[in-house]
Amino acid sequence: MEAMENLTYDELQIGDSATYTRTLTEEELVLFAAVSGDVNPVHLDPQYASKTIFKERIAHGMWSGALISAALATIMPGPGTIYLEQSLSFKRPVRLNDTLQVRITVAAKEPKGRVVLDCEIVNQNDEVVVTGQAKVIAPSEKIKLERPSLPRISIGESS
Amino acid sequence: MEAMENLTYDELQIGDSATYTRTLTEEELVLFAAVSGDVNPVHLDPQYASKTIFKERIAHGMWSGALISAALATIMPGPGTIYLEQSLSFKRPVRLNDTLQVRITVAAKEPKGRVVLDCEIVNQNDEVVVTGQAKVIAPSEKIKLERPSLPRISIGESS
Repeated sequence: MEAMENLTYDELQIGDSATYTRTLTEEELVLFAAVSGDVNPVHLDPQYASKTIFKERIAHGMWSGALISAALATIMPGPGTIYLEQSLSFKRPVRLNDTLQVRITVAAKEPKGRVVLDCEIVNQNDEVVVTGQAKVIAPSEKIKLERPSLPRISIGESS
Repeated sequence: MEAMENLTYDELQIGDSATYTRTLTEEELVLFAAVSGDVNPVHLDPQYASKTIFKERIAHGMWSGALISAALATIMPGPGTIYLEQSLSFKRPVRLNDTLQVRITVAAKEPKGRVVLDCEIVNQNDEVVVTGQAKVIAPSEKIKLERPSLPRISIGESS
């Protein structure tokens, strides 16, 4: 069982960074539509998407936001982090099978456990797709725990 | 079949607002963990969550962000909208079975189709859980289309 270990406020130093990589699968496009209710056909319908300026299906912008939040919650600072603020600037579309690398970097340490992190996502061509900044309360105590396993999720035919 | 119809840049007026309501189910907590990779046990493990300051499982913060993006993409301005920026400030935790109402309000119209929208999410007790602001390129042409239906998604036992 894989472990998740956090970085406390005291351990974090300005300039520290961490990365988190993820590839957009068709399954994730469908799940993100389901979990947000954003069923815009530019994400779901290849024929419709082909007639838009994007030419093909694209990711929900907030899927990229979700990857940033996952990096903050599971890697740096990790478990025990309290999310206060996030800004996101969507620079380029994300397409099916694109592999995104989230990089978060400690930009500032503020009083009361507050930490500001610069966030950048690049695709497999090293093009910046999202930039932003997060503010969190970093954990004060060390936490190490087992990474929970997720239930099996299966996707059927369109109803 | 339900239809989605957008509001064009020309149709949108400062002060116009729209709402989108959604209840956090256990299934959505699990799906959001799967689609983001954020398997932090504060979202998934009731026993772990009971020992945190939240006392019980809470939503991923970015799930609220996803609801805002869904409101922008499917209701106002709706299909054809291009997402440029989003800021989010997480004010209060969202708990299982909380019903959130997203309200988006046109705050400013800028050149080149740009529209700024204030975003606020309140829970069933009328407490503000998230505030933020979005910037989009609003559609220039009227689009009316059928709301796509999603495949059936089923969640099994933890593997």
